[in-house]
Amino acid sequence: MAQQQEEVFKKLIAHCKEYGFVFPSSEIYDGLGAVYDYGQNGVELKNNIKRYWWDSMVLLNENVVGIDAAIFMHPTTWKASGHVDAFNDPLIDNKDSKKRYRADVLIEELLAKYDDKIEKEVEKAAKRFGASFDAGLFRQTNPRVLEHQSKRDEIHTRFVKALNENDLAELKQIILDYEIVCPISGTKNWTDVRQFNLMFSTEMGSTADGAMKIYLRPETAQGIFVNYLNVQKTGRMKIPFGIAQIGKAFRNEIVARQFIFRMREFEQMEMQFFVRPGSELQWFKQWKETRLKWHKALGLGDHKYRFHDHDKLAHYANAATDIEFEMPFGFKEVEGIHSRTDFDLSSHEKYSGKSIKYFDPELNESYTPFVIETSIGVDRMFLSIMAAAYTEEVLEGGETRVVLKLPSALAPVKLAVLPLVKKDGLPEKAREIMNNLKFEFKCQYDEKDSIGKRYRRQDAIGTPYCVTIDHETLTDNAVTLRDRDTMLQERIPIDKLPEIVSNKVSMKELFKKIQ
Amino acid sequence: MAQQQEEVFKKLIAHCKEYGFVFPSSEIYDGLGAVYDYGQNGVELKNNIKRYWWDSMVLLNENVVGIDAAIFMHPTTWKASGHVDAFNDPLIDNKDSKKRYRADVLIEELLAKYDDKIEKEVEKAAKRFGASFDAGLFRQTNPRVLEHQSKRDEIHTRFVKALNENDLAELKQIILDYEIVCPISGTKNWTDVRQFNLMFSTEMGSTADGAMKIYLRPETAQGIFVNYLNVQKTGRMKIPFGIAQIGKAFRNEIVARQFIFRMREFEQMEMQFFVRPGSELQWFKQWKETRLKWHKALGLGDHKYRFHDHDKLAHYANAATDIEFEMPFGFKEVEGIHSRTDFDLSSHEKYSGKSIKYFDPELNESYTPFVIETSIGVDRMFLSIMAAAYTEEVLEGGETRVVLKLPSALAPVKLAVLPLVKKDGLPEKAREIMNNLKFEFKCQYDEKDSIGKRYRRQDAIGTPYCVTIDHETLTDNAVTLRDRDTMLQERIPIDKLPEIVSNKVSMKELFKKIQ
Repeated sequence: MAQQQEEVFKKLIAHCKEYGFVFPSSEIYDGLGAVYDYGQNGVELKNNIKRYWWDSMVLLNENVVGIDAAIFMHPTTWKASGHVDAFNDPLIDNKDSKKRYRADVLIEELLAKYDDKIEKEVEKAAKRFGASFDAGLFRQTNPRVLEHQSKRDEIHTRFVKALNENDLAELKQIILDYEIVCPISGTKNWTDVRQFNLMFSTEMGSTADGAMKIYLRPETAQGIFVNYLNVQKTGRMKIPFGIAQIGKAFRNEIVARQFIFRMREFEQMEMQFFVRPGSELQWFKQWKETRLKWHKALGLGDHKYRFHDHDKLAHYANAATDIEFEMPFGFKEVEGIHSRTDFDLSSHEKYSGKSIKYFDPELNESYTPFVIETSIGVDRMFLSIMAAAYTEEVLEGGETRVVLKLPSALAPVKLAVLPLVKKDGLPEKAREIMNNLKFEFKCQYDEKDSIGKRYRRQDAIGTPYCVTIDHETLTDNAVTLRDRDTMLQERIPIDKLPEIVSNKVSMKELFKKIQ
Repeated sequence: MAQQQEEVFKKLIAHCKEYGFVFPSSEIYDGLGAVYDYGQNGVELKNNIKRYWWDSMVLLNENVVGIDAAIFMHPTTWKASGHVDAFNDPLIDNKDSKKRYRADVLIEELLAKYDDKIEKEVEKAAKRFGASFDAGLFRQTNPRVLEHQSKRDEIHTRFVKALNENDLAELKQIILDYEIVCPISGTKNWTDVRQFNLMFSTEMGSTADGAMKIYLRPETAQGIFVNYLNVQKTGRMKIPFGIAQIGKAFRNEIVARQFIFRMREFEQMEMQFFVRPGSELQWFKQWKETRLKWHKALGLGDHKYRFHDHDKLAHYANAATDIEFEMPFGFKEVEGIHSRTDFDLSSHEKYSGKSIKYFDPELNESYTPFVIETSIGVDRMFLSIMAAAYTEEVLEGGETRVVLKLPSALAPVKLAVLPLVKKDGLPEKAREIMNNLKFEFKCQYDEKDSIGKRYRRQDAIGTPYCVTIDHETLTDNAVTLRDRDTMLQERIPIDKLPEIVSNKVSMKELFKKIQ
């Protein structure tokens, strides 16, 4: 990523820690790789994101219900889903440094180096030729660029073929042929490439014959599929209908990076929508629209979203798209929408020997439903919102403020209650106001430091409103309400406070936009 | 447990499955031992329980904030907490059946057999002597009872001593001396007793030197302790203050039983309250009262709760109590309140080498805070509420109804919307009402079968209110509102509906009771 973006990203990570949003896990023990904890403000933002999603699914859709399946599942589940056999990363070791790498990542980095070389030639030429420079023509004709491009294409072709054919020997051969060296030892002394399964496993129970090997689920979706029959029958559900779930999933990523964007322990919000075979592409289109609307309703900026339709589909899908969001490190997937066909239900049917069919009274026939999946990573969603909200503003006086322009309904604290001074009965009045409002939304009392400093602290955690209790309050029963984004202040009667703030911070306003 | 209670418990388990509250995990693969999934109604009840707890903690207490720490923690955490060395069950194998048992459970079962023998003698004598029988005197004088009692005391004394001294050889010796046989093989051919750690472990990462062995947390509390410093500093918290957390924990129980009461994967709601040393017993008392009030506010019956103060304290505690609830299988712990001293923070200080001290501006000195812990199992809480709510009622006509008398604020569905017939514009009117209310609380539309049958279905999932839309509704804009518990019906204008139902199902009503 560009240096400036990298700076912004670093600032964001520091801000997340400094203001109690995200801490490295077990930090007093120097952390644990690619695992993070949510702090006192982070947990509230995360819970609000989850509630926004959950309520949008189960309150707004009459035909979507929730479940909460366990992280532990019967191990055959992962045989049926294909994860035991195919959820692998190709790893390679350097024998000198003893360091381990993903073979595919090493090759991708090599490809990126060729891209860099080409860009440098173009930049150099642009400087030399000035305004008259035609970059397109230059790329098509410059011999050095063409040489780099041809080499890059050659590697890329072999790489894609090796991946498609799962040819581990060829992956190693590419690494040897193009002389990729270990960044630590600098040598080409590589082991063979081996498959490494990304599921965490553990042993359950203890019998004299041995324990049962089980996995931590690498996705929540299968918890929905194995419960499909139970929910459909006990809930008397009629197709089309959906099952929504929020929960943890675990992947033993070798190269985990970009803060909470790719973690080993993460949380998913997934909804599987069961439809009549043949209608799935219609529903796929419908859910694409619905989901994009849901994201845009947050008001982070419509231009920050785009669809990325997949050309290459997973073996179980007949259509797939990502909703991408513009992160500090480029457009990245925050949600996937997949038409999964009847792959999962049919596979569980085969492995379990139980019939997983739906009798459609309108068609008077039974079939295995097709599935449209919508799947978001909570943590990615969290990161995208924090990234979009983080703002540095230069104020009139030349001072800078850092303000988190979070959607009000998602903000950890909705209202800060600030007595102007710590005496004269103002703290008591402030607490009285808080006690009346605390059933409605999260309030925070703060009496320390100047009002200006207190505003800055609330800006930094994204509190949409602050009220100041001053001496006049004691006589006119009114307070000053300050808006986070405009910084405008207005005097309002105390008894208007619940309504004004509730209207602004309530999730209902978001729901109305996505109706 | 008595046969009648066992019947009730079985019915409850069946009801949980039939109405989408709790399913055996991965049931299509014949389940996974001591793991359960929450269905479409169960997940809503569970989420409502969690929200009731969370909001009571972080909204009603200015000085309690939340966090959400990862399940994966640095392994030294569990060394410091004592779980690596001491979180064990003593296991023994029968060499003939190859079955494995908890040695302590085998001995407890033997003790229970002596109790049974004594009770049988008493019962027999009571029958023989009739009304004049003095059971107390009989127990003190009957030679057979005395013989049983003396044997029981002898075993019990050895057993307690062996447990206290962690003497595994003596546990085996008790099993041999009192000729305990394997229930499967019937033989006394036992192995030695070995300690079995209850933590699930897995391997994280993959380096050429090997992966790191980590554990699935067996309790959420340590996630709070290792984050204590970060939260205190970034949240500018002043002692006394608390940190609340809800999350999954895992224990590889050998003997898991009683449905969702003891599971291998379960969820905890824990709050650690940090106080000045010396004030901890005062706070312990305070939190005991606060927590009991919280439970009683649900209205399940005050007589169903009792405290069970611990005589024998864990090594880290200087006071401890359980809040017990009357389950179908007797009074059982639903919440523990523990005065944990500075054991955990001091231990993490020692293992991490980092200073975990609080500077108290009032005392002008630094100290390691003492901790009061309140800890509930969400699943136990769920079970206790279901057990208390499950009611079979004989109605006037002689018919029986099964009704879940759930606290309204916790019910999965708040309002059922029922058009009297499936025609004449009544379904359209019903949907119009639903669309107006669905932002407020969970509604369920149902047009199938007779109104009576529909009421029964809603009773069975604990829906506090049903409205019926009839032909008159189209002209008078009023509906019939039916109360779940009284089954009384009243005619009310549609525009009064949001307020009437909201007031009854809102959690605010509960909060006011525990203020």
